Formats: sequence, structure tokens, C-alpha cells
Amino acid sequence: MKPKIEDVAKHAGVSPTTVSRVLNNRGYISEKTRKKVQESMEHLNYFPNEVARSLFIKKTHLIGLIFPTTNNPFYGQLIFHLENTCASLGYKVLLCNSQNREDKETNYVKMLQRNQVDGIIAGAHNRGIEEYDIPKLPVVGIDRYLSSTIPVVSSDNYNGGQQATQLLLDKGCKHIFHINGPDFLETPANLRRRAYEDVMRSNHLNPITYEFPYRATAEAVQEIILRLFNENPQVDGIFASDDLIASKVIREAKKRKINIPADLKIVGYDGTETTRLLLPELSTVEQPIKEIAEKAVEILIQQIDGPHDDIQLETILPVKLIDSETT
Amino acid sequence: MKPKIEDVAKHAGVSPTTVSRVLNNRGYISEKTRKKVQESMEHLNYFPNEVARSLFIKKTHLIGLIFPTTNNPFYGQLIFHLENTCASLGYKVLLCNSQNREDKETNYVKMLQRNQVDGIIAGAHNRGIEEYDIPKLPVVGIDRYLSSTIPVVSSDNYNGGQQATQLLLDKGCKHIFHINGPDFLETPANLRRRAYEDVMRSNHLNPITYEFPYRATAEAVQEIILRLFNENPQVDGIFASDDLIASKVIREAKKRKINIPADLKIVGYDGTETTRLLLPELSTVEQPIKEIAEKAVEILIQQIDGPHDDIQLETILPVKLIDSETT
Repeated sequence: MKPKIEDVAKHAGVSPTTVSRVLNNRGYISEKTRKKVQESMEHLNYFPNEVARSLFIKKTHLIGLIFPTTNNPFYGQLIFHLENTCASLGYKVLLCNSQNREDKETNYVKMLQRNQVDGIIAGAHNRGIEEYDIPKLPVVGIDRYLSSTIPVVSSDNYNGGQQATQLLLDKGCKHIFHINGPDFLETPANLRRRAYEDVMRSNHLNPITYEFPYRATAEAVQEIILRLFNENPQVDGIFASDDLIASKVIREAKKRKINIPADLKIVGYDGTETTRLLLPELSTVEQPIKEIAEKAVEILIQQIDGPHDDIQLETILPVKLIDSETT
Repeated sequence: MKPKIEDVAKHAGVSPTTVSRVLNNRGYISEKTRKKVQESMEHLNYFPNEVARSLFIKKTHLIGLIFPTTNNPFYGQLIFHLENTCASLGYKVLLCNSQNREDKETNYVKMLQRNQVDGIIAGAHNRGIEEYDIPKLPVVGIDRYLSSTIPVVSSDNYNGGQQATQLLLDKGCKHIFHINGPDFLETPANLRRRAYEDVMRSNHLNPITYEFPYRATAEAVQEIILRLFNENPQVDGIFASDDLIASKVIREAKKRKINIPADLKIVGYDGTETTRLLLPELSTVEQPIKEIAEKAVEILIQQIDGPHDDIQLETILPVKLIDSETT
């Protein structure tokens, strides 16, 4: 059993009220008594119960994070910065890996409410339903529209898509394809695809997107890549909607003895630290992950601290093109 | 403000005691009243306060996770499985990224105690001090000896080191070097180095380990790799203590136009899903990350559920050699 306030009182030879006064810095306490109580707390390894205190002040300083999985370079880096920013502001985080499963996500949202979190930051699947529309509970979405009233922070996906496509054009590609997930999800990431299509059309080229299904297995994504290569032997440029897909494209091209970048140029998306370390040759669009995390926490705490009419509903941060060795 | 039990009572036209009885399934309540209360809870979006309940039952179902950072393929995957396993058993996790900093780690341990966690799983830096030796608080270490009485779960680092070195020998390497962090840290991972040295000696070869400093910057690690190549032009085999280092070695070898695997063979360590995806050509030793997570949670909860004399102090899980394209 963890030591209680009564144990400290007994050890110090004072009343529980006195211990409570020392803890809360309330009422008159002699220096001698204060010292005695503090020594007893240390001796017994007593920690003031933040759980009890949170009930009293009606604030837990807990923030729930709902993301598909930390087992992914983008979310791993994002969650690191979210936790780090929260910690620096006195907030703790409850981590939830929803694995893109609706049932898990719903259960996590309920669990977080039962645990009285002060707010939620979510970057999980958006089903356009009202799960996150919780009266009085601040929520911020990252790269996901959770509802019409919930602020969302993302990087400039449209500009990123433009830059990636333009880079391939500038390097002389004539047959550029795009690979992406399904666009029925209302995510800002769809803008990467829209930008690709717009840039292609404005250059009088036909945009073709190879789409893999939602929650596709590794095999399903691989199949789409194979199909792209098989159906389009003329392909000389591929813009993949994330670096992991780009990595699979590189792999398949090597298997087919296609020369990169001479005969095929590839651009990915995300530019996480892990990808830059393991696959530095990949040209990609780097998202400002740390800044996204800091902005999301800032907007969430702004809401927690009081009702604001001036919450910015959409925050878009600039991306950076990395022209490496695959272009 | 979040709705309270009194708000539900008012809305349902019953007393708070009645609401409490419905919540706790206690005493006689008519079906009609129960339904009315439940409808009011739903209407007001009321959730029973798990914080208040945890005070009452003296159990928070909270587990603290202290690891260097989720922004790393190994820890990202490990933390995913830890959280997932905890969630399946009704536990929530408070995430702490200690960034290998003692001050952060110490503060997190205190924070977790103030928040009355039921236990802690830690894989952060071990300073051999008594920070984790908390009376009555269950703790489990992953790949870290936290104290003589705290159970530790790790993979078979010695066997992994043996297999990696033996693979290089079997493939004909004569000048095999090892790269690792400092061995003053009392981590089971030192056994990778010990195994390398033992296998080399038993083959009448001179083991040479290039060591980079604790918390080395990317530049410092890079410098060690450059030194290894510069001082040993005859090198034909390198066993790196993790895949990220192995990736840098590959990069440097390519820069020097050294042919892999013809002239230089490389083995890494960890074999995370992310590395296998981004760098599938790397031969490596795969750790059973999911099994490590599950075992750590199992041992922690065994301790939480009651004092046990039969807690296994050291659990060692088997590794798997992946002979890919760099060997």
C-alpha cells in the first residue's frame, strides 16, 4: 500500500491536518514542524496525491493522445514532440494507439472522458461522425477534420504536392504517376493528390493516381505498386503520398533493374528523422513535425484555459522540399 | 464544466443517491428509474468519474512508461505493443519520453508517483541509483537493470551477438569490427559486444570495438564510423550494435565506393518493422519486440495483483538472425 497522509502524521507525531497544512502551504506552521513533516514524507516516500487534488481543483492536467500507432516514423516523431511540449507545460499524456480501428477509437474517447482528461489531440481516422464533438471538452485534430467546430493543425499538403510534382517535371519526367490512399477520408492529406492532379493538368498532362484501399495490408500496397509498373512501362516519375510507400517503390524498381534516378525519379512525403536516417537518398517533402505538435498543444491549452471565440479553426504550416538522390 | 452526478440527478428528477445506485448497480432501483437515469447520463454526456473511483478503490489502473523517445523505430514499436497489451487488460498508460536525461527521468518517476500509477515499465538510462527502488511500487525494466530487485525483460543479446559475428565469419570475413555505445552502462545490450569479442577470440581473431560516447550526437557517431574506415582499410565485416548505426555504415561504404556485400559485409541489430520496410537489404538480428512487451506487462501486473515471491527476475527471449543482402 502507498503511504497515506495519516502515516506521515503518525511518523512525524503531528495531526493529519498539520500535514495537510504543510502540503498546501496554508495556516501557521512553525519551521520546526514543517521540517519534521517534510522529513517524514521523504522517509516514508510519500507523494501528495495528485489524483485527489485533481478532483478538488476539477482539472487533471491530463491530455489524451489518439493516433493510429507509435510504430510509424511519422507518428512516433509527432507523439514524441506532443508529449514533450505537454510535459514542459505541466501536462501529462495518456497514449492511445487506435490502429485505425473505429471500435478502438470510440472506446478510447470514452475512456479518456471517464478519466476526466482536460483535452484530446487526435490524428486518427475521421469517420465524419460526432464522436469528438463533446460538449465542453477541448479537442484538436492533426491532419484530420474531426468536425466542423474542431480546430485542425496540418502542414501545407497542397503546396507539398505541388512542389513534389513540379520537381519531377523540372527534372524532365514525362510520365508521372501518383500513389495514395482512398480519398473518401476527409483528410487534409487528400490535398497532396489534388495538387498533383492540378499541376499535371496545368501542364497538359494526364494525372493518374493509383489508389490503395483504406487500412490496406503491406501486400495490398505492394500489389498496387506492381500494377503501376506492369501497366505503365513508360513510367519515369512517381510521387508517393508517404515515404514508406516511396521506399517500396524504390525496392520494386531495383528489382526490375530500373535505374534511379536516370530512368525513374521518385519523391516521397513526410521526411521524418527516421526516414532521413535510414533512407537518406529519398527525395521527399519534409513536414514540420515539431511545429505541428507545438501548435496543436498551444491551441488545445488555449481552449482548456478558457472559452475563446478566437480559436483558429485551421492552421497550415509550411513544408520543405528535399531534393536528394532519387530525383 | 464537465457534467456532475448532481446534474444527472436534476435532469432525471431523482436524488444523487439514486444516480449513484444506478452507477454502482447497488440497492433496489426500478427499471423505469434506471432507464430515466441512463437517458439523462447519455443526454448530458455524463461519464462516471474514474478519477474519483480510483481514489475509492485505491487503484488507478494507470501504468507509467519511461523510455528515451517514441521517435525511434525500436521504442516506437515497443511502446505500441506495451500500450496495446495494457489496454487489452484494462490499464491505461502515461507516456514519458526521458530523452536519456537523468533530470527528466527523475522528474517523471516523481510525477508518476504523485499520479498514483499502479506500476512503471522503464527502458531508460540506468544510473545504478535507487530512483526506481520504490517501496510498494511495482516496476519492470526492459533491457535495463534498474536495481537488483527489479525484474528485467530482454532479448537474448548474447546469442544475438554470437549469431551476428558467426554469420560474418561463415561468409568469409577476416577483419571484423564492432561498433557500440559505452559499456559502462549496465545494460543487457553490452552482451552483444561481449559475444562478439568471445566469438572472435575463440576463432583466434582480435576483437576491436569502436565505441561512441553516451548520448553521442549523430555527428559523433559519424566520426567514429569514419575513423573505423580510415584506420582499417582492410575491414571486410562490421557488426553494428543497432540498425541505425548499420545504416550509417552502409551510407559511408557507398560513399567510399566499397562494394556491399562483396568487399564489406554488415550486420545490424533490432530488426524493427520500420527498418525492415525502409532498409530491407540490411542483415540484422531481429528482437521479439511484441513478446518483450507482453512479458513485461505480464510481470508488472503479476506484481500489481499481489505480492509474489516467485517473480522471475530475468526473462530472456530468443532472437532471430535475418541473413539479407548486406552479408
